[in-house]
Amino acid sequence: MLKFFYAQNTCSLASHIALEEAGADYETVRLDFRTNDQRKPEYLAINPKSRVPALVTDRGILTETPAILAFVAQSFPEAKLAPFGDAFAFAKVQAFNSYLCSTTHVAHAHRMRGYRWADDPAAIEAMKRKVPESVGASFEMIEGEMLEGPWVMGETYTISDPYLFTLAQWLEADGVDPSRFPKVQDHSRRMAERPAVKAAIAQEFA
Amino acid sequence: MLKFFYAQNTCSLASHIALEEAGADYETVRLDFRTNDQRKPEYLAINPKSRVPALVTDRGILTETPAILAFVAQSFPEAKLAPFGDAFAFAKVQAFNSYLCSTTHVAHAHRMRGYRWADDPAAIEAMKRKVPESVGASFEMIEGEMLEGPWVMGETYTISDPYLFTLAQWLEADGVDPSRFPKVQDHSRRMAERPAVKAAIAQEFA
Repeated sequence: MLKFFYAQNTCSLASHIALEEAGADYETVRLDFRTNDQRKPEYLAINPKSRVPALVTDRGILTETPAILAFVAQSFPEAKLAPFGDAFAFAKVQAFNSYLCSTTHVAHAHRMRGYRWADDPAAIEAMKRKVPESVGASFEMIEGEMLEGPWVMGETYTISDPYLFTLAQWLEADGVDPSRFPKVQDHSRRMAERPAVKAAIAQEFA
Repeated sequence: MLKFFYAQNTCSLASHIALEEAGADYETVRLDFRTNDQRKPEYLAINPKSRVPALVTDRGILTETPAILAFVAQSFPEAKLAPFGDAFAFAKVQAFNSYLCSTTHVAHAHRMRGYRWADDPAAIEAMKRKVPESVGASFEMIEGEMLEGPWVMGETYTISDPYLFTLAQWLEADGVDPSRFPKVQDHSRRMAERPAVKAAIAQEFA
């Protein structure tokens, strides 16, 4: 059976939702970042990068949200979570998810994990101050150029949808007014109504 | 025909090598970052994110290195650049590429593009000082945990190889001694001998 490692209020929610959408048989392990579970030897044996999510499969361990999302989609084709048979359409999904991990999530990470990129406390504070602007700019790009609507890829729900939903939940805490992005807000509202989303969130906060 | 937009000394080299490996029929457009070609209206119409690479196809435009790499691999299956028929093996490739774009490349970007994440000049200098440590830590992870050898995924060459090769070329400029990573160095040496790598580099610097 699949074993899924996650932490509350992190990007692992995206993969968790995908597992629910796929109807996968899986068990969960919750890490508590407040007690640094992700840096303990038991977890470093699972993911030496000290991050979530991680998915233990019968073939080995997978990490990195875009990869886990694609794995879930490809492993449960009947759920139709990604257009695997169409190289261009699949690349569009991957491009969206790659932008989220390398630009949107990275902008957000400068609010609480600036120590990754500077040691000086004043620099870390300077990074925090920029987050509303950099995260806001990233969501402007998503709203204006990338989110086709009603789902990210248009009429078809894909693995890009739980990922966008997950990062959009962080806007207010990042100092960005979500009402600037009506398409993203509408997307989040419709996502929140999906049984898979409710189930994943209920598990994570039970 | 495919049209490929790149700039010298950027991550677009990875996709350029993949196009060569695939034997694709494509033309290239070189952007000059010194004159900010990437911010000019002509290019913003191609990629509103002002970044390279971009690949114009007959279906539309693709961006983001991991997505373009997967597209090239899937569009030219006879080149066998990714294990599309095996969800787990494909996810391993995607996980590696996702780590490069969201962690390794991001660490590197703090040397020259710190303005993305802070306004204060002192903070931008503090980011530069941390790059040898953060890029070095990322390559330690690659060397110790991720690069199976002789190729990234083991015996089989994949789209992870040109991507690793491309980012490894930046180590010295980032203040990291490449000799700390003998497996990565050996990988770069063997990559540099491949005709596809020589052809892509020759085109970019012609």
